[in-house]
Amino acid sequence: MKLGEGVEAAIHCAAMLAGVDGNATMPAAAMAESFGLSPSYLLKHLNMLSAVGILESVPGPAGGYRLAQPAERITLLDIVLAVEGRQPAFRCGEIRRNGPVKLDASAYVKPCGINAAMLKAERAYRAALAETKLSDIVASFNADGDPRSVAASCAFVMRHQRPQKSSSIPQHPKQT
Amino acid sequence: MKLGEGVEAAIHCAAMLAGVDGNATMPAAAMAESFGLSPSYLLKHLNMLSAVGILESVPGPAGGYRLAQPAERITLLDIVLAVEGRQPAFRCGEIRRNGPVKLDASAYVKPCGINAAMLKAERAYRAALAETKLSDIVASFNADGDPRSVAASCAFVMRHQRPQKSSSIPQHPKQT
Repeated sequence: MKLGEGVEAAIHCAAMLAGVDGNATMPAAAMAESFGLSPSYLLKHLNMLSAVGILESVPGPAGGYRLAQPAERITLLDIVLAVEGRQPAFRCGEIRRNGPVKLDASAYVKPCGINAAMLKAERAYRAALAETKLSDIVASFNADGDPRSVAASCAFVMRHQRPQKSSSIPQHPKQT
Repeated sequence: MKLGEGVEAAIHCAAMLAGVDGNATMPAAAMAESFGLSPSYLLKHLNMLSAVGILESVPGPAGGYRLAQPAERITLLDIVLAVEGRQPAFRCGEIRRNGPVKLDASAYVKPCGINAAMLKAERAYRAALAETKLSDIVASFNADGDPRSVAASCAFVMRHQRPQKSSSIPQHPKQT
């Protein structure tokens, strides 16, 4: 079982964007610099998050990315599915039907028990991912992370975030 | 997240081998025929199961594969890990350390909270897989599967299994 490497980058970027002030944005190049990643590699994953409404991208000279929703409403499951796709990890190829004995399609109306058991485990996985909100990740980092890391991360965000003239995020009224 | 296609084949074969009589074996070619798979593709996965003690292969003209343990002691987790490897699905690349601000290694002694949350979800997944025994899969198929499928599968096993002269599996004493 394998998750793409982009999942780690996507979660770290979303957590960083949870730290920008109000409706400010962060350029992709700054996030790529922060995690030592290629900007084109990162853009691909940021666009996946934008496509499902986790991030929004703001065009123009002061543009960049910001959260499209409050961090309390974004879960690790949202991010994992955005990057990895919504298909289950176990892909049932219905190989039970391939053998030499050809039965009528009605013999396969009931789902394969193996597929059912694998999907049950995946529901447990997804439920656990859905329990962790992006805001939990950020709160835990701020409370329990090494103070040097927290300070460096905070300073990086302050240095690279780009304030916007007008806000489209009503949940941060102080910035409007 | 993606599991290799071999997982489906491996679980189906193990379930089929749970149905052979006593210490009889089943040739890989028969299992490949039963699921419409290439014998070389299937051999690779059968050998992965043998390598971790889920199956045993018996050489010689009456040889083939059989379970190395009772089906009650084999879980879906055992099979998934045998085929996919034991590494977690989420591979933490420690990208938190890659950025422009170089901190002392002591700043990263605490595990990354993102990795910790992803591993927690994976433990839930593995726990769910570990709850399902191969014997549960077989019992559920025999009880709830379409009777035509159950009969065809049973007939296939009876036709292709190869009885052995002596047993190395003490849990089937009636065959010794």
